[in-house]
Amino acid sequence: MTTQVHTIAVLGGTGAEGSGLALRWARAGHRVTLGSRNPEKAAKVCEELNAVLGSNSIAFSDNRSAASAATIVVLTVPHQAQHATVDEVRKEIAGKILIDATVPLVPPKVARVQLPAGGSAVAEVQRMLGDTVRVVSAFQNVSAHELRDPDHSIDCDVLVCGDDVSAREIVVALARDIGLRAYHAGPICNSAAAEALTSILISLNIRYKVPGAGIRITGIPDAAS
Amino acid sequence: MTTQVHTIAVLGGTGAEGSGLALRWARAGHRVTLGSRNPEKAAKVCEELNAVLGSNSIAFSDNRSAASAATIVVLTVPHQAQHATVDEVRKEIAGKILIDATVPLVPPKVARVQLPAGGSAVAEVQRMLGDTVRVVSAFQNVSAHELRDPDHSIDCDVLVCGDDVSAREIVVALARDIGLRAYHAGPICNSAAAEALTSILISLNIRYKVPGAGIRITGIPDAAS
Repeated sequence: MTTQVHTIAVLGGTGAEGSGLALRWARAGHRVTLGSRNPEKAAKVCEELNAVLGSNSIAFSDNRSAASAATIVVLTVPHQAQHATVDEVRKEIAGKILIDATVPLVPPKVARVQLPAGGSAVAEVQRMLGDTVRVVSAFQNVSAHELRDPDHSIDCDVLVCGDDVSAREIVVALARDIGLRAYHAGPICNSAAAEALTSILISLNIRYKVPGAGIRITGIPDAAS
Repeated sequence: MTTQVHTIAVLGGTGAEGSGLALRWARAGHRVTLGSRNPEKAAKVCEELNAVLGSNSIAFSDNRSAASAATIVVLTVPHQAQHATVDEVRKEIAGKILIDATVPLVPPKVARVQLPAGGSAVAEVQRMLGDTVRVVSAFQNVSAHELRDPDHSIDCDVLVCGDDVSAREIVVALARDIGLRAYHAGPICNSAAAEALTSILISLNIRYKVPGAGIRITGIPDAAS
C-alpha cells in the first residue's frame, strides 16, 4: 500500500489524534511505536489498536526510546505539553523529521482562535530546534474520532507546511498512505492557518451541531494532491 | 432573488475583489455604490460593470459619500490602505455594519502567512472602532477573478466571523445572494484563520499551477449553510 516503509514514533500516541494516526499508519505497513509517559495507559491503548488490526504490529515505550528508534517522530500532545515533550526528546530527534500536529487551543475557549504571539505554535518549535530537525506541520484539522475508525473515509484534506520541501514530500506521502488528500501549503510559518482553522472547525461543530466539520481544498486536480 | 434589499457601499470598489462583489450584489437586486478616491477610475469601472449588467444600477462616488448613503459598508482595499480608509469614513459608518475583506498580505512574500501582531487585521479594525460599528470579516478566500464573471459558479465557501451574531447573519445572507455558501465561523478574532488561509491558497496556486484554489467546508448539511 505504501511506497516506503518508515519507522514512526507517535509521541502522545495514547491520545485520540495520535492513536488514530498510529492505527492507520500501522495498517498501511509502517512500523509504529506509541510514545507515552504513562506505560499502563500506553499498554492499554496499544492492546486496543492491535486488536483492531488483528496483529501485534504496534509497540509502545517511553517518549525518548520511541523517538530514538524512529526515523520519523510525530508530536500529538496537547499544546500545554508541546515544549516539554520536544525538550525531552531533543537529542533523539536530531537529524530527523518531526511531524507536529499541535493546535494551540487555549481552554476553555477552544472555539476561539488564540494563536501564540509568534503566530504559529509549530513554527515556534522549528525555531526552538534550529536546523537540526526538519519540522513539518500537518494533521491539525483531521477529526481524531474519524481517524480511529480505519475504514471510515475522511472528508478532510491535510495542509502540510514546512521549510524543507523534501520533508514535506514525505509527510504528503504519509497522509496519502492513510487515505487522506494532502497538499504542500508552504513554509512552516503557514502552519498558523491550519492551527487557526481548527478553532473554526470546533466553532462550526458547535454552531451547526455536527460531529466533525472539515475542509477540502478546491481548484486543484486530484492527481496533484 | 434576495430576501432583503440593502444599500451597499463597496470601498475600494474599483479593485478586483470589490468590483466583483459589487457586480454580483447589484445583479442580486441590492443598491450598490462603488467608493473610490479616484473618480476617473471609478467612472470607468462603474461603466464596465453596468455594461455587464445591461443597466445603470451601480453608482460611484468618493468613499465618504458612498459610506454615508449606505446601510452596509464593505472594505476591499489593500491591507496598506485599510486603517486610513477606516479612519476616513469613521463618522459615516457609525451604527452600521462594516464587512471587512482585508487580507494582511505583506508583499512581496504574499504566499507567506504574516499575520499582524494582534493576530487578525480585521479584529484590529473592530478594536479601532469600538462598539459603534459591527465589524464582520468575510470574503477573504474567494477569488476576485471568479467574482467578476457573474455566471461563474464559485467553488469556495465563505467564513463569516464577527462578534455580533445578527450582523453575521446578514453577511451570511449577502453571501448566499451571490451564489456562495457561507458559515458562521465565530467571533471576530477567528478572522485570523480566514486571513491566513489566503496566503495558503496563493501558495497552492503557485505550487500546483492553478488559477484559483479555494476551500470548502465539509461535514455540514447544505441546508445549514
